[in-house]
Amino acid sequence: MAGDTALGRHKAKACAACHGIDGVAKMPHVPNIAGESTIYLEKQLKAFRSGERHDPMMSIIAEGLSDDDIANVSAWYAAIKIEVTLPE
Amino acid sequence: MAGDTALGRHKAKACAACHGIDGVAKMPHVPNIAGESTIYLEKQLKAFRSGERHDPMMSIIAEGLSDDDIANVSAWYAAIKIEVTLPE
Repeated sequence: MAGDTALGRHKAKACAACHGIDGVAKMPHVPNIAGESTIYLEKQLKAFRSGERHDPMMSIIAEGLSDDDIANVSAWYAAIKIEVTLPE
Repeated sequence: MAGDTALGRHKAKACAACHGIDGVAKMPHVPNIAGESTIYLEKQLKAFRSGERHDPMMSIIAEGLSDDDIANVSAWYAAIKIEVTLPE
């Protein structure tokens, strides 16, 4: 199922304290997730939910997410565009 | 140890086919890693190397990395700046 970005943006309030609503991390141990693909984001959320990947925070958060929630928040963060600038 | 970005850029040739030398993924199942923190990048590389996190490609790649390699490639990718644009 393709996720719904509007529903995902709403659901992403649960992610925003750490990852930002814009996908830019608020603390150094947290990854930026802006512009990651839905394939990657859904896979990681499902890996945290199943226990295949472990993190003290994400394992708890992912437990509460349905497949639809995962598709929607992934669609939201994947819809953010990123541009990069290399160091001089 | 703080990594060396110049050495890291050189070592990152081993990462570039998938992650780009600029940290922008070349294929959808691969994450963008541009601008991730050294804390996050080093933690993930060490998790792949130890087997705590598993991925068919990254588990093999990380096996061949020393602590210095990990510090250096992490320093390189962390030195890339990202800017994000939210969807309309």
